[in-house]
Amino acid sequence: MNTARIGIVGGTGYTGVELLRLLATHPRAETTVITSRSEEGRSVAELFPSLRGAVDLKFTAPVSERLADCDLVFFATPSGTAMGMAPALLRAGTRVVDLAADFRLRDAALWERWYGMPHTCPELLGEAVYGLPELNREAIRGARLVANPGCYPTAVLLGFAPLIEAGLVDPGRLVADAKSGVSGAGRKAAVATQFCEVADRLCAYAVAGHRHLPEIEQGLRGMGGDDLKLTFVPHLVPMVRGMHATLYGWLNECSADIQALYEKRYAAEPFVDVLGVGGHPDTGQVRGSNLCRIACHRPGDGEVVVVLSAIDNLVKGAAGQAVQNMNLMLGLPETTGLDGIALVP
Amino acid sequence: MNTARIGIVGGTGYTGVELLRLLATHPRAETTVITSRSEEGRSVAELFPSLRGAVDLKFTAPVSERLADCDLVFFATPSGTAMGMAPALLRAGTRVVDLAADFRLRDAALWERWYGMPHTCPELLGEAVYGLPELNREAIRGARLVANPGCYPTAVLLGFAPLIEAGLVDPGRLVADAKSGVSGAGRKAAVATQFCEVADRLCAYAVAGHRHLPEIEQGLRGMGGDDLKLTFVPHLVPMVRGMHATLYGWLNECSADIQALYEKRYAAEPFVDVLGVGGHPDTGQVRGSNLCRIACHRPGDGEVVVVLSAIDNLVKGAAGQAVQNMNLMLGLPETTGLDGIALVP
Amino acid sequence: MNTARIGIVGGTGYTGVELLRLLATHPRAETTVITSRSEEGRSVAELFPSLRGAVDLKFTAPVSERLADCDLVFFATPSGTAMGMAPALLRAGTRVVDLAADFRLRDAALWERWYGMPHTCPELLGEAVYGLPELNREAIRGARLVANPGCYPTAVLLGFAPLIEAGLVDPGRLVADAKSGVSGAGRKAAVATQFCEVADRLCAYAVAGHRHLPEIEQGLRGMGGDDLKLTFVPHLVPMVRGMHATLYGWLNECSADIQALYEKRYAAEPFVDVLGVGGHPDTGQVRGSNLCRIACHRPGDGEVVVVLSAIDNLVKGAAGQAVQNMNLMLGLPETTGLDGIALVP
Amino acid sequence: MNTARIGIVGGTGYTGVELLRLLATHPRAETTVITSRSEEGRSVAELFPSLRGAVDLKFTAPVSERLADCDLVFFATPSGTAMGMAPALLRAGTRVVDLAADFRLRDAALWERWYGMPHTCPELLGEAVYGLPELNREAIRGARLVANPGCYPTAVLLGFAPLIEAGLVDPGRLVADAKSGVSGAGRKAAVATQFCEVADRLCAYAVAGHRHLPEIEQGLRGMGGDDLKLTFVPHLVPMVRGMHATLYGWLNECSADIQALYEKRYAAEPFVDVLGVGGHPDTGQVRGSNLCRIACHRPGDGEVVVVLSAIDNLVKGAAGQAVQNMNLMLGLPETTGLDGIALVP
Repeated sequence: MNTARIGIVGGTGYTGVELLRLLATHPRAETTVITSRSEEGRSVAELFPSLRGAVDLKFTAPVSERLADCDLVFFATPSGTAMGMAPALLRAGTRVVDLAADFRLRDAALWERWYGMPHTCPELLGEAVYGLPELNREAIRGARLVANPGCYPTAVLLGFAPLIEAGLVDPGRLVADAKSGVSGAGRKAAVATQFCEVADRLCAYAVAGHRHLPEIEQGLRGMGGDDLKLTFVPHLVPMVRGMHATLYGWLNECSADIQALYEKRYAAEPFVDVLGVGGHPDTGQVRGSNLCRIACHRPGDGEVVVVLSAIDNLVKGAAGQAVQNMNLMLGLPETTGLDGIALVP
Repeated sequence: MNTARIGIVGGTGYTGVELLRLLATHPRAETTVITSRSEEGRSVAELFPSLRGAVDLKFTAPVSERLADCDLVFFATPSGTAMGMAPALLRAGTRVVDLAADFRLRDAALWERWYGMPHTCPELLGEAVYGLPELNREAIRGARLVANPGCYPTAVLLGFAPLIEAGLVDPGRLVADAKSGVSGAGRKAAVATQFCEVADRLCAYAVAGHRHLPEIEQGLRGMGGDDLKLTFVPHLVPMVRGMHATLYGWLNECSADIQALYEKRYAAEPFVDVLGVGGHPDTGQVRGSNLCRIACHRPGDGEVVVVLSAIDNLVKGAAGQAVQNMNLMLGLPETTGLDGIALVP
Repeated sequence: MNTARIGIVGGTGYTGVELLRLLATHPRAETTVITSRSEEGRSVAELFPSLRGAVDLKFTAPVSERLADCDLVFFATPSGTAMGMAPALLRAGTRVVDLAADFRLRDAALWERWYGMPHTCPELLGEAVYGLPELNREAIRGARLVANPGCYPTAVLLGFAPLIEAGLVDPGRLVADAKSGVSGAGRKAAVATQFCEVADRLCAYAVAGHRHLPEIEQGLRGMGGDDLKLTFVPHLVPMVRGMHATLYGWLNECSADIQALYEKRYAAEPFVDVLGVGGHPDTGQVRGSNLCRIACHRPGDGEVVVVLSAIDNLVKGAAGQAVQNMNLMLGLPETTGLDGIALVP
Repeated sequence: MNTARIGIVGGTGYTGVELLRLLATHPRAETTVITSRSEEGRSVAELFPSLRGAVDLKFTAPVSERLADCDLVFFATPSGTAMGMAPALLRAGTRVVDLAADFRLRDAALWERWYGMPHTCPELLGEAVYGLPELNREAIRGARLVANPGCYPTAVLLGFAPLIEAGLVDPGRLVADAKSGVSGAGRKAAVATQFCEVADRLCAYAVAGHRHLPEIEQGLRGMGGDDLKLTFVPHLVPMVRGMHATLYGWLNECSADIQALYEKRYAAEPFVDVLGVGGHPDTGQVRGSNLCRIACHRPGDGEVVVVLSAIDNLVKGAAGQAVQNMNLMLGLPETTGLDGIALVP
């Protein structure tokens, strides 16, 4: 069978190196071009020594023709880049997965408000498929353009989905208290994410509003959550990878068997693992793997349901999910190249 | 002026070494006896090399007479120890501060259910004062027996107090999502708190019920929170010290100026620091200090108020608060010996 | 082609879970039995949730017949266990790889001095092959019994080998200053390796003598280092995985091209990567991979050569090397199942 | 008695915040001015929230007159700044302690080679006193200009001093393998010291040559180490504070009692603590304190002596030592304001 030709735009950040790692051992895909203006001419293995011997590419300037020669192009760029290059690639017949936010919100005005720039191809927002396979598998299979979800939205949406789809909780009072490893902030020179600024401490941030909030709200509304009121508070945790969402909802109907609901909803999902009763997923147990591990609790058998959802923000929350989407788009088995087991300890 | 003679029972754990550190530079207190059955005869500085040159004591067996010779005795022991020894000390005129849980709950039956053992001196529960100075200052001044609060209760009660006291939020739906450094689990040989089991990862624990829940509920009820329903979820964070409570409440009345409420409530408090509008307290900013730093938010100016409360679990959450209580009980200025500034970075 | 039947004795520690992880995706080996007295009857995935869905085994009591049914058995046990069970397995035709120290030293008296117990099958010490493939590849291929090297010896021996083999440095004054992640201490309840005892700090330990010293000395002597004097100082570093040896030697002959020597010595080795001139290997760049990355320096072009050698102590320093040995013993390509790329960041 | 008026130039980095912390509780010194071009007008407590309530200063532009009004000025600036401003301050009668490197090397040409810029006041190099009190106490007392040592030189020189002064080791083959916490790299936006670039990993760096090498060599030569050959290899360790030097020397004379030598040499030193035989100092045991803890070993009673030296790089390795120097220069008891006990855990 054919090997797909894959391009990566950007790829000098943490989602980039993770994408390169996953693709390097993917049996049906080959990264043929990786572009970066700032690193043009440099070998990938020099920038990322972990890839020495495994990736033998150089960064090149982002030239459309070379990218259009690929079957599929990933954008591992800051938000605002993909929307400039995607239209030409799509016209050339190249499929696109954007790991940034350009195509995540269907409402261009809302996007512009949160991202602080004009959207240059709002006409593609209707076509773009939100790449959460557990919600949108069939649409992803046929898509030319996939918006890979943010890490917080992935953890929160997978955690809330069974409850919201079943209409079991009040959508008017949802809380998502989320904790992220520092790699979620990306690989960039900044004081705020220096080792000495984040090690051995924890804080909340962006309580007034985080860009992933409208994305989560859109996703919840899509599940039937009208009249939605979600409070979302992200926290920065002194760990490299890992994301944990602690979700709170108030049950409409206290007789439901929540555990059975979750197990049934995700029974066929290769990358969602519902823990047994009383479980507590640990981000360490998914480090490096594409799994989302979920547990649900009803403390004191009361009206509040607490859902715990853990992912590796760089895998199921970014590069792994992107490869999962790629597999679907290319007609490959969904788990191809994604069988890595979490690295413990 | 006199120097108070201080005894410590236990003191081989993290609250013990922190208590010793604080007392070693306290100008009005001198630790004269420290007891430990397991470490009897060993020098404190051998067990805790950080105290070499600063503490010149040996652990002795817990003999009542020697302890009764002290003006005040701290119990830095597992729960269940203080209740056995406190009655005799009190009879001898020695005041007692218990850093464990023996005297925190007023209801002996409730205590026995959560701590799994009979309470041996329930008659003292009525007299014991819950040692949160910001709530009970006057009672502490006159107390013979003070129950030093747990770390989670300290962070949560100080965070919620202004709202509950003012009746501004619905006590029937409160959420406390709390994050603790690993030192909260104590200094003991256990697999679960090995470096390799907790580093670089995060998880929730005890969602079904944690011993600090009834203590927090009792405290909130004492502020006027009848018909209380609190959901409390603790998390273990890969940091040594530090505790962060993220608190969620639904306002009854959306016109209130929450920021002004908090600033006024804590204006005279030496150890509660209300951050300005939009602030995010960071546990690193209170590391080693006795401060509780608090910020309040109303995302989207909605009905939900989010309070962020950060302490050092070993200081304001344990040993520092114990010294604060001691200062009050001995008639000293409340801040004596507690002016240490947070160690940053 | 056949799939080899593999047994694991022990396997409740960190080398055990790493071995299980590597074998779970190994295309030519299947773990058919895993034994543990303490965990008998428990599912592996319950003890190690990271293996949920990937390993479907239960721990069983260590019964010789069941183990003898395997083609090869790994001992991931404390030292002193394998020597009790290996003879029977070898008689039954099952090959053995011991990840502990029972068969690492050829001198039984020396072993007994360092390990503090009598050796129960010294007659096997002559037959046992020291499983460092870069030194002993051919012997390993034909071996029934392989002593998998310690983590420190792996890093130090691979680092020093080219210099000692070539007789370029004075064997009478070698220094190995080594730094280990905490997982090297194993998965056990101990105060000394609690998170709060090791996080955010560093210390040397066992300067007076560490069990890996005679193993390293034996290895260096085997390369031709007579009249050997090695000073070995291990350090405990606040990281989970990773080992870095900083090696110092005094050149006999300053005209040698050390860089060329190393590149040539390791040119054909799949798991030794010699960095370019001026390189500094980082333990993070080998995390989760079976690579040893090495760089050599001559500060100021002087007589001292400094070699930097980095491995993942649980992979090339334990389980990965054990699988590499298994591959050789079973006649498989040496790299089978070991193509995992380091997890970065 | 008078309180000294203290100025700080720079002070937006980690040595700055540590200096502010120490001075804030110093009973005989008051910080009256702190300057920063980049933060002019901003309150110190806004930049460093840990100082809220303890420091009530604003950063101002560096104006000579305001600084000349101080009794003593600290430079907590990048190298190259103090040499521009110190001459005028000295002329105005203000004493100067430079925490950077401008006055550490007596040889201007050597300085220019390592620091890559011309030295603008080489005429002061003869007068400047190298501020290591354990070596230069009397000279510091009378100094107008003190060059505060680097962190590596402090740990290495204190560790080697007794041996070199006594002529007991061969100065022609010394090794200093040093490990530093990340705060040693300063507080600046850089990719290399991002949390995700250094957490959970370790590497050596600058093996070819580090700026602290000539400083250490100068110090060792000053103790009598002619014909010196030192190999110095620094390592970056995933911890915030802390520095550990592992020192190797070859004894000329094996009959010496090294332990007694060290104990006698440092008997009267308030900030050097020689551990008992077999000790292993741990950087955690000096975190936040001004102590240097040292232990010496002779593995196998051989000719190699191994000295372990641990400091907090920001305290004894920077700000604490600067305050110690200030105390000496101002005629105060040397330990004033430096009695802080290490924060453990």
